[in-house]
Amino acid sequence: MAQMLLSRKAACNAHGQDSSYFLGWQEYEKNPYDPNTNPTGIIQMGLAENQLSFDLIESWLERHPDAAGLRRDGALVFRELALFQDYHGLPQFKKALADFMGQLRGNTVELEWRNLVLTAGSTSANETLIFCLAEPGEAFLLPTPYYPGFDRDLKWRTGAEIVPIHCSSSNGFRITKRAVEKAYRQARKQSLRVKGVLVTNPSNPLGTSLTRAELRTLLDFALAKDIHLISDEIYAGTAFAGSPSGFVSVLEVMQGHPLHSDLADRVHVVYSLSKDLGLPGFRVGALYSSNPAVVAAATKMSSFGLVSSQTQYLLAALLSDRDFTARYVAENKKRIAERHGRLVEGLRRAGVECLESDAGLFCWVDMRHLLLADTFEAEMDLWRKVVYEVGLNISPGSSCHCGEPGWFRVCFANMTAETLDVALRRLEDFVSSSGRGGGVHSATDGRPRGPIRLARWMIGLSSSCDRRCERGY
Amino acid sequence: MAQMLLSRKAACNAHGQDSSYFLGWQEYEKNPYDPNTNPTGIIQMGLAENQLSFDLIESWLERHPDAAGLRRDGALVFRELALFQDYHGLPQFKKALADFMGQLRGNTVELEWRNLVLTAGSTSANETLIFCLAEPGEAFLLPTPYYPGFDRDLKWRTGAEIVPIHCSSSNGFRITKRAVEKAYRQARKQSLRVKGVLVTNPSNPLGTSLTRAELRTLLDFALAKDIHLISDEIYAGTAFAGSPSGFVSVLEVMQGHPLHSDLADRVHVVYSLSKDLGLPGFRVGALYSSNPAVVAAATKMSSFGLVSSQTQYLLAALLSDRDFTARYVAENKKRIAERHGRLVEGLRRAGVECLESDAGLFCWVDMRHLLLADTFEAEMDLWRKVVYEVGLNISPGSSCHCGEPGWFRVCFANMTAETLDVALRRLEDFVSSSGRGGGVHSATDGRPRGPIRLARWMIGLSSSCDRRCERGY
Repeated sequence: MAQMLLSRKAACNAHGQDSSYFLGWQEYEKNPYDPNTNPTGIIQMGLAENQLSFDLIESWLERHPDAAGLRRDGALVFRELALFQDYHGLPQFKKALADFMGQLRGNTVELEWRNLVLTAGSTSANETLIFCLAEPGEAFLLPTPYYPGFDRDLKWRTGAEIVPIHCSSSNGFRITKRAVEKAYRQARKQSLRVKGVLVTNPSNPLGTSLTRAELRTLLDFALAKDIHLISDEIYAGTAFAGSPSGFVSVLEVMQGHPLHSDLADRVHVVYSLSKDLGLPGFRVGALYSSNPAVVAAATKMSSFGLVSSQTQYLLAALLSDRDFTARYVAENKKRIAERHGRLVEGLRRAGVECLESDAGLFCWVDMRHLLLADTFEAEMDLWRKVVYEVGLNISPGSSCHCGEPGWFRVCFANMTAETLDVALRRLEDFVSSSGRGGGVHSATDGRPRGPIRLARWMIGLSSSCDRRCERGY
Repeated sequence: MAQMLLSRKAACNAHGQDSSYFLGWQEYEKNPYDPNTNPTGIIQMGLAENQLSFDLIESWLERHPDAAGLRRDGALVFRELALFQDYHGLPQFKKALADFMGQLRGNTVELEWRNLVLTAGSTSANETLIFCLAEPGEAFLLPTPYYPGFDRDLKWRTGAEIVPIHCSSSNGFRITKRAVEKAYRQARKQSLRVKGVLVTNPSNPLGTSLTRAELRTLLDFALAKDIHLISDEIYAGTAFAGSPSGFVSVLEVMQGHPLHSDLADRVHVVYSLSKDLGLPGFRVGALYSSNPAVVAAATKMSSFGLVSSQTQYLLAALLSDRDFTARYVAENKKRIAERHGRLVEGLRRAGVECLESDAGLFCWVDMRHLLLADTFEAEMDLWRKVVYEVGLNISPGSSCHCGEPGWFRVCFANMTAETLDVALRRLEDFVSSSGRGGGVHSATDGRPRGPIRLARWMIGLSSSCDRRCERGY
């Protein structure tokens, strides 16, 4: 009875976990793979966790017991930390974080630590920015495919809307001026006021970095339309393709833009230590902005999700060790590159290609040739087979609002190399036994999909699976 | 320019810190008291911190190095915690927290740990409940005086409204059925739909526990009007008045209510470790509800402000040590009682009375006889004198929406006993030198204040001082 007294937010969200994708997680949890105790179980490839470099942090922790032990020079600093709740954050942590972010950007930009706002994870950073920038009913444009959690993070409590910028495989899912303009017109047609564009760079789920040209297009568009640009760069430290890496921060391109000063107030970066350091449990996110009003409002909003002072203290020590962070970043990228190569190689042996990528903890895998029809129903059929028969929990592209059926996000950094090999052998067996190496659709088929199919995923899949999203999807 | 593109939330909040009360904090920060280096500085009495029992936790930490050291039986469990981000929280922590909450309630109620939702502080727990229960424009009734932070926590991002239940000194600021009904009618007159009542028990700023009769009144009212009741019980562990303490949880009274089953879905409790354990920096809050839809929605919302797994791990160990918690709670209450007595005694020597109280880290001090007129302007004049001339940063009642000028909240647990004595001597000197021991108004003057005065504080003070609120006000 009292349930009828709940807000629409609470009442409608109650259905989120019924999403069909949740089945994959339920199956995984009922029957998780273990090389010794459950070798036929389901292998979790839907989780963008970075488990590759914990040994580096662990050995640092062994050498620096004070950092985790709430001590300074051996003496407890517990009471100082217990009481610390200035929502501006521990200055030594923010300075170290700003330095680390600069380091990940090749020191091409200098970040002012006072422009950082700490939040309990990037989930909160993204929501905070939307609260700061948009009224309920106003819209942000997002290139597809995009992280399914954004439907929750950006819309649920803020009341803002997402309008997709449709990207397609025909140009490797690159963002074009034309697609952005089209999304903008679409929003206007829906009588939505557009307040900004939000991109992930490197992209989740694509694993690709935005090019300078794409970033320039987005910056010019933000100026032309007098709107904001949010760049979620939580995978910055995973950009593994050599040096200089393919990843370029929007801050660097903005710095070189002729209208730099007009841009400074409207460009906002989101960051987190969940991916690059593999610390999602510690809930450390941040937003970076040169707009003083945004920094002021977001700082006040951060009181709804502050980072534990205990955690700030530990990470201040860790990130202040510049020698360590330099070694960590280099080694972590090397390991990601190796693992990425191993996945790409194994997929290729199975006759499966993926989008060429240079970052992320996953690949964007093209299984269009394995579909029985060029539909999202066929994608779901294939996905269920992969979960139940092959025993791999991967993420269908439709959950990321991809406009073309047959793409899947496959994670590679949340398991051992041996487990990855098992997964790849299973996939190879599946593809060869299903005898559809050639496929019903050619791999270069990138024709735009019709409105009926789009409408279907927009209606059916928008709530996606909250629980999976939460878990570092 | 781009500032005009911000949301109204961000744009209007930018002015919060200009509040006149912020001046007191600024003065304090410019000139903080130190017995050795700055003995004439301002003493901070506006901060409800509990610094009385850190030694107990510190000695526990010394005896249990694994808890803070991210270890189990000496071995690092870092990677397990680094990856843990299930928004349901660490079960061992939630079980220990539910037990601890039961212990603080004299084990008269058994809390089901699965009904707990962890949040990064009670700030977030309160906002989350409002998001779950109210649409923008719907109202909650709050007895005055109330914690100034609620204007931010309950209204800012949710769009909900607060309608005051006017309590007065005539009956010791007790909540009456009549006052609650009147507030409800007032809300209806403003065309606001009332979704619930929110109380603090023990009360911040009064330091008093609600009586069983008051709680029964509130429960009956919630049933009669088909609305919710939120009880913020973050000061539960500070109830120091003997055993059994005066504090009774709404959960206990609900349990004994004849319509218990109709109430279960509409009663929600907020908790935090910031006051009882003195850990605001660790950002550990929770809400407790037997309404499954609220628990489900709030759990999903908690992804915007999760508690660091590092902190959950440490506190799981601490709170699981039942012998320790029993000793801590008893000793902490004893120290609070001593400190409270010291403040009351010292005030009395200065000819100043306060509301009789049995909990909290502060007293609700009656300085009406020191006002030059029975107005909030006079209250501000007195307050400025106390800050600038006496050198005490205390909180004027108007910041808590008190309907009667002349009341102040004075904190006693965020300093040493010696510092408290200095503060009390200063106050005594001030009162005797101002020669107004008798006062312009009698201490029993409790006549209701007119609408003009109310309107003034409602307009002028509603945004209050965010920074102070954040800091454990």
